[in-house]
Amino acid sequence: MTKKIPRLIITSGEPAGIGPDLCLMQAACQREAQVVVLADPHLLKDRARQLGIEVRLKTFDPSLPHAASQPNELLVMPCKLEERTVPGQLDSHNAGYVLKMLHQAVEGCQDGTFDAMVTAPVHKGIINDAGIPFSGHTELLAELTETPRVVMMLATEGLRVALVTTHLPLRDVPDAITGELLDEVITILHRDLIDKFNIAEPKILVCGLNPHAGEDGHLGREELDIINPALDKLRARGIHLAGPLPADTIFNPAKLEQADAILAMYHDQGLPVLKYKGFGEAVNITLGLPIIRTSVDHGTALELAGTGLAHSGSLNTAINYALNMIQSGQESRD
Amino acid sequence: MTKKIPRLIITSGEPAGIGPDLCLMQAACQREAQVVVLADPHLLKDRARQLGIEVRLKTFDPSLPHAASQPNELLVMPCKLEERTVPGQLDSHNAGYVLKMLHQAVEGCQDGTFDAMVTAPVHKGIINDAGIPFSGHTELLAELTETPRVVMMLATEGLRVALVTTHLPLRDVPDAITGELLDEVITILHRDLIDKFNIAEPKILVCGLNPHAGEDGHLGREELDIINPALDKLRARGIHLAGPLPADTIFNPAKLEQADAILAMYHDQGLPVLKYKGFGEAVNITLGLPIIRTSVDHGTALELAGTGLAHSGSLNTAINYALNMIQSGQESRD
Repeated sequence: MTKKIPRLIITSGEPAGIGPDLCLMQAACQREAQVVVLADPHLLKDRARQLGIEVRLKTFDPSLPHAASQPNELLVMPCKLEERTVPGQLDSHNAGYVLKMLHQAVEGCQDGTFDAMVTAPVHKGIINDAGIPFSGHTELLAELTETPRVVMMLATEGLRVALVTTHLPLRDVPDAITGELLDEVITILHRDLIDKFNIAEPKILVCGLNPHAGEDGHLGREELDIINPALDKLRARGIHLAGPLPADTIFNPAKLEQADAILAMYHDQGLPVLKYKGFGEAVNITLGLPIIRTSVDHGTALELAGTGLAHSGSLNTAINYALNMIQSGQESRD
Repeated sequence: MTKKIPRLIITSGEPAGIGPDLCLMQAACQREAQVVVLADPHLLKDRARQLGIEVRLKTFDPSLPHAASQPNELLVMPCKLEERTVPGQLDSHNAGYVLKMLHQAVEGCQDGTFDAMVTAPVHKGIINDAGIPFSGHTELLAELTETPRVVMMLATEGLRVALVTTHLPLRDVPDAITGELLDEVITILHRDLIDKFNIAEPKILVCGLNPHAGEDGHLGREELDIINPALDKLRARGIHLAGPLPADTIFNPAKLEQADAILAMYHDQGLPVLKYKGFGEAVNITLGLPIIRTSVDHGTALELAGTGLAHSGSLNTAINYALNMIQSGQESRD
């Protein structure tokens, strides 16, 4: 059987940010994959001129067979901007455009046109300013795919960090850590490490909530009262879990070698090391969705749009990760 | 003027742990310094035999002039154990011994016998089991030197991380972050970077409390209500502060190059990156004391005591750091 060339869609994100720049830079990359960019073709043409990038824009035709992208050519799935964009200048009139691209990409993944979607950064504030409630990519994708619970995981070479809680004030974190949440998050993490990463028996290291993982209750009781019982239940179902472990020593290289993922209880416990280790090359993955979605780990960097100073390391990593996940998913089903 | 050779005292810590092993390993190190070990000489003799380390133990005489340590010789300031120790077996009868060493070392630093003290690990639990309230080295040293506020800082090559709060349950952190505390901590950090590290105009990067440093109040208000006003007051006094910044991107190498220290709001926000970057080579420094004190960044590692498997990287770093601080202190006073 011939292996089908994977096809993925990149949503170009906030038009005034570096998303369009990063998408244009993909034309120079050779991959055994068909990479399609979702954007307004006029925006891409304008931005390419500003950046001095020579690229042929070709309209994507879903009826043609999958074929690897050609050098200096960019396949574009068109989506019309409301207002012409000036790099670096947010315009709330284009909030609808940004969201429409996400809807189209999800639809394309669900109907089998695409094998995965990769998202360039959006600007949460300007979408809210347009009067549209929006708290982030992850939440919108969960809603569009009717997924009750998703898990945010960041990854870089040699390290995957998933989070139990994400964008919560620190004050609200301790009460948010419940046995039920831990059960749901770890179940998703474990299942996706098998299904999407083709790891037969995933090993997960779990951080405590408190410093020194609570030091037997001297520095907080959540480990004893909530986390330990939840982990024990999951272990009884055959999931390999170590912890709760102190977050300041869990990233010891010898420990990481034994682990397929680290589970942190909250944002600033897990992401500083991940981003320090992988700076500029980290990828954000939404687990638990019925589709494959990866994302850059950075924001819109408005001040860099159109300047040629944006780095595509994180988008490249996000694309490569999505391609690996497509392949691993096929292998785990075989 | 001839430069006086610096003299420092190492407290050997919990006798059943790796502290005595690490102290014995110092006999093989050549330094332009006089390193004195505070321990029971019989314990050292026994442990040296177990480890197969050839070393001459010589009783320290404070009346003799400072002189660099000799190869394969260890200067010992004797302190008598209550009970003979078996490696790896804690005995609450020796809790008093562990504390007596700390008292003696502080006294020696205060009366000018020593220029600095370096501490090997103690075991908090066994001291408490002996009925002695003890919450850690740092707190005891503050008490003994009548210092109302000290600051814990960890350091490794190219990175210093100080903490606003230390060993607190995560639930108690947000309310502990007050304008007064930030003022005291940053004042000490700034002053010690000048006085003990000879940095003329220290630059400090300050983390926010919440993820993304609160994202303009969307993810918590402590940055707007507490941290910003506190930093502004300190800036008005001429202290160079950047922040509050998101903790997940503050460790970007380009940012670190511009900074003399990172100030984290709590334990697991700042220490995972520090320990990941410096694993086995990090040092714990107590700022704000009238004396110089550094420490290893690890625990007693009971299972490694007497086996020869303990690594002295952190103790070496702690000694080197103390020596640098002695020299920087002299230079900043010159």
